[in-house]
Amino acid sequence: LTYDLILIGFGNVARRFVALLDEQRHTLARRYGLTTRVVGIATRRHGCVYGSSAAVSGFSRTLTAGRMQDGPSKGGHFVPATTLDFLRDALTRSRAAARQRRLVVVETTTLDIARGEPATRHIRAALAGGAHVITANKGPAAFAYRALARAAARADRRFLFEGAVMDGVPVFNLVRETLPAVNVIGFRGVVNSTTNFILTAMEQGQPFAAALAEMQARGIAEADASLDVDGWDAAAKTAALANVLLGAGITPHAVARQGITPDAGRRAAEARAGGRRLKLVARARRERRRVTARVSLEELPADDLLAGLEGQQNAIILETDLLEEIAVVQRGGSLTQTAYALLSDLVTIARATPQSPPSRRGHRSL
Amino acid sequence: LTYDLILIGFGNVARRFVALLDEQRHTLARRYGLTTRVVGIATRRHGCVYGSSAAVSGFSRTLTAGRMQDGPSKGGHFVPATTLDFLRDALTRSRAAARQRRLVVVETTTLDIARGEPATRHIRAALAGGAHVITANKGPAAFAYRALARAAARADRRFLFEGAVMDGVPVFNLVRETLPAVNVIGFRGVVNSTTNFILTAMEQGQPFAAALAEMQARGIAEADASLDVDGWDAAAKTAALANVLLGAGITPHAVARQGITPDAGRRAAEARAGGRRLKLVARARRERRRVTARVSLEELPADDLLAGLEGQQNAIILETDLLEEIAVVQRGGSLTQTAYALLSDLVTIARATPQSPPSRRGHRSL
Repeated sequence: LTYDLILIGFGNVARRFVALLDEQRHTLARRYGLTTRVVGIATRRHGCVYGSSAAVSGFSRTLTAGRMQDGPSKGGHFVPATTLDFLRDALTRSRAAARQRRLVVVETTTLDIARGEPATRHIRAALAGGAHVITANKGPAAFAYRALARAAARADRRFLFEGAVMDGVPVFNLVRETLPAVNVIGFRGVVNSTTNFILTAMEQGQPFAAALAEMQARGIAEADASLDVDGWDAAAKTAALANVLLGAGITPHAVARQGITPDAGRRAAEARAGGRRLKLVARARRERRRVTARVSLEELPADDLLAGLEGQQNAIILETDLLEEIAVVQRGGSLTQTAYALLSDLVTIARATPQSPPSRRGHRSL
Repeated sequence: LTYDLILIGFGNVARRFVALLDEQRHTLARRYGLTTRVVGIATRRHGCVYGSSAAVSGFSRTLTAGRMQDGPSKGGHFVPATTLDFLRDALTRSRAAARQRRLVVVETTTLDIARGEPATRHIRAALAGGAHVITANKGPAAFAYRALARAAARADRRFLFEGAVMDGVPVFNLVRETLPAVNVIGFRGVVNSTTNFILTAMEQGQPFAAALAEMQARGIAEADASLDVDGWDAAAKTAALANVLLGAGITPHAVARQGITPDAGRRAAEARAGGRRLKLVARARRERRRVTARVSLEELPADDLLAGLEGQQNAIILETDLLEEIAVVQRGGSLTQTAYALLSDLVTIARATPQSPPSRRGHRSL
């Protein structure tokens, strides 16, 4: 089955996603009967394009090659009043694909972390228009998971966001696909790479600012680094995890939040000298009907799994009813991993669609 | 859909599995439209039973309560020449259910680790008879994965064995269901609880024999503890992982194997004193067309994820092409976890069957 993709947001993640689809096209076709074509792209500064394969891929190539100047220019693309207007128009034009359940909106716009917008708005519109939605954005699940999950159920379409936490390393898919009948009672984890990198660097005597600058140079820190440093990014991920895994129905504002400051350097070095590690730990737990969640600095004993996370490594330890504790650890992170999360969500959609052939070929098919 | 189960082997794991199905029946019905009934049981020492729900559950209750003496006795059950004869007869009698794809053979017999039998024989017969197969046995995937996967594909039935490694913590399901398009290049891990417990105990000055006795008393060590101590159990798991994840086509005999002896105690204590940890590490890696696999004692730096595994904890670190390294850690192990693995395999089958309702209800359904 060929899926039509509308890309809302066309930054580094979306571009890497498009490249990855191309690199993996033989595997996707052979294993999952999945092919794709991009039918629309909305950018922040270069307008939008919808239509023929040639127009869209020309636009995509020009942007990726960095040959387009800021602001609208002439060509196959146009500048709608808002991205939402473009999306609605594109959904209308793609209604045949939507009806055939083969339309997918890929949401990767920059997030306003205080409100979870505009991503949430885009996703509502996409589902209402009969598209599946995949996103690497944590905002929608952090701010509006319950409403969006309901909207998806009503529309009989999927809303998937594996990349919201730990990039492509499966957390949401892990629980949904491989832990049937298991109830998650709580979790704790290290979910922000920038702060963990800074804490690890400060333990070894490096200054806060230098470590942060390195994370910014490598493109790991958020554009507005205070979102990482103040614990906002971790709080948003905690809310998303709590909403999905614990049924919490909270927003990041309900997560008790602590960040890291240059002062934490001395504490981190002292902890390490004493055989302990200072970590920014995200926690949530269901107690009867209520879910409590927080992000805070914790001194952990050296043999704690979270204590051993160096540099940018992340991990989540799930506390469950039937399986006690299970941990999943991300030991490498990159743009490819985030883009891969989108690809894995796309495959999840393709697998659930009856037309796709059974994945019973080769040694991967058990 | 109601699945008919034929239990081949009725030891602790199978009994806990039957109890777990009962405990979870509401969840299974609601989330996955899955109900079950046991139509046949083959035991090692108490004969076999096939037939009406009343006869089977009476037999099951009597055995579970421990009220039946060794050897055949009167009643609804009978003693076939071999378990394989019973299985073939049961498959014939269940052919209607088999045709409807709702017959499942649950294989939990005791394994001859040098040959992977009789489990492998049972599974061939089950697939040929139109049944799906789920097993907690590592033997079949360790000795005959490729042939059994082919037999399952030919029969258009599933052959699943999540419990073969790390009990119910997903490894095979993780790769199959949540890592589409990712290729596993290699792995390393600690996969045998008994030897890890003994090494941890010896580090702290406990004698080998006492630690082993504790693992036997807790029912963690194999009935023949030499299988753990000599590294056979780890080698079989390594072969199973290499066959499934790396397409190796090997048996445990092809895994270079080292075990642990009381001598390792001094080495473990010295390593720990020097800030390192001695672990029995399973490794396999694909190099071009060839897969090499081994189980050996390794001294690991303290910050290695495997070094931090205390007592019975297990972990596997997957090396992948798209996602670098991902680790999954089992922090608790019990009979329930192994039984849960069978349950998760059963749900995997139910989910792939078109009759089951979509799992879109409640907060677990994204």
